[in-house]
Amino acid sequence: MGNVYVVGIAGGSASGKTTIVEQVREHFGSQIEIIGHDSYYLAHNNMPYEERCKLNYDHPDAFETSRLVEDVLKLKAGETISRPVYDYTIHNRSTDTVLVEPRKIILLEGILVLENEALRNLMDLKVFVDTDADERIMRRISRDTLERGRSIESIVTQYRNTVKPMHDRYVEPTKYYADIIIPWGGENAVGIDMLMQYLKAHL
Amino acid sequence: MGNVYVVGIAGGSASGKTTIVEQVREHFGSQIEIIGHDSYYLAHNNMPYEERCKLNYDHPDAFETSRLVEDVLKLKAGETISRPVYDYTIHNRSTDTVLVEPRKIILLEGILVLENEALRNLMDLKVFVDTDADERIMRRISRDTLERGRSIESIVTQYRNTVKPMHDRYVEPTKYYADIIIPWGGENAVGIDMLMQYLKAHL
Repeated sequence: MGNVYVVGIAGGSASGKTTIVEQVREHFGSQIEIIGHDSYYLAHNNMPYEERCKLNYDHPDAFETSRLVEDVLKLKAGETISRPVYDYTIHNRSTDTVLVEPRKIILLEGILVLENEALRNLMDLKVFVDTDADERIMRRISRDTLERGRSIESIVTQYRNTVKPMHDRYVEPTKYYADIIIPWGGENAVGIDMLMQYLKAHL
Repeated sequence: MGNVYVVGIAGGSASGKTTIVEQVREHFGSQIEIIGHDSYYLAHNNMPYEERCKLNYDHPDAFETSRLVEDVLKLKAGETISRPVYDYTIHNRSTDTVLVEPRKIILLEGILVLENEALRNLMDLKVFVDTDADERIMRRISRDTLERGRSIESIVTQYRNTVKPMHDRYVEPTKYYADIIIPWGGENAVGIDMLMQYLKAHL
């Protein structure tokens, strides 16, 4: 394996990260390996389901980022890794793993991928998707009421109690590390095209 | 002339716009035509020098942007234009003009190039160079004391009286229109490389 180019894409909840990542996936297919930070949520095998539901999944400590760092290092060294799988239905790490082979480009995606210094130091390109907080909560309410059948009250309570304080404390400050900021996320066709062209140049 | 690609690069005073533009000039030479909004400062031929010195050059009304819009339209139509020249030593438009031939890429640069809607509508790519205000005033103080021999007091007075209020009122809000935000300006090698690659792809 020659040089592996590592890209981090961070940004708040409902900032449009996923839309961008989906376009990368659609355009580049298996040429680019996309790894979600969420896959590295910590396992809580000795904790009852009710307690696992109450954990703060927007805090840096919810992730086993050290394992992600090791895995990226292995991929950079040309090794195949066993990526963990997170199972949202049980709020715990699954017993499955996914074999990930090294690729020329690895894209790390998640609200907090720019938070960890060791992980950041492995990145060649750091992108922050920046969407105003009011726009993000509107998207979240629309999505979670329509697609997930959640009540507005539960969305708003979760947003006030965890999403917003964690965003302001841990996510937003990582914009400082970004090489490039893409405003509006998925709706920003020109910004996305620029990113796509740049990835293409590194394949 | 085929399609002319128009790029706008905005950002506050001392944000690093000029460093980026200089790198574009160095790398692409005459392939890309760079036009500074400052060249289109209004002529004030019937105003004494002392009064011209007191004008607010950070306000959108200081520019003859309508002429810049016409000139960009002409360049897009494949016509050669006579660009005005601004003479800082007399704080007035010079009697000289510069012939500008159409190119595949036209780069418009200035603190307020994203402020005018008609001008914005001619742009294919809108870039905002975003540097924190404290970093920008430090750069400005260093530059203007060392290179221009100005006193700190005069820099600070000008900054408080015009630069800052005009930035907050007219420059900063245009970040809203940006397709891509480059933080830190000239020091951001990765962000600049991304822009350069993208320009190259449009030549």
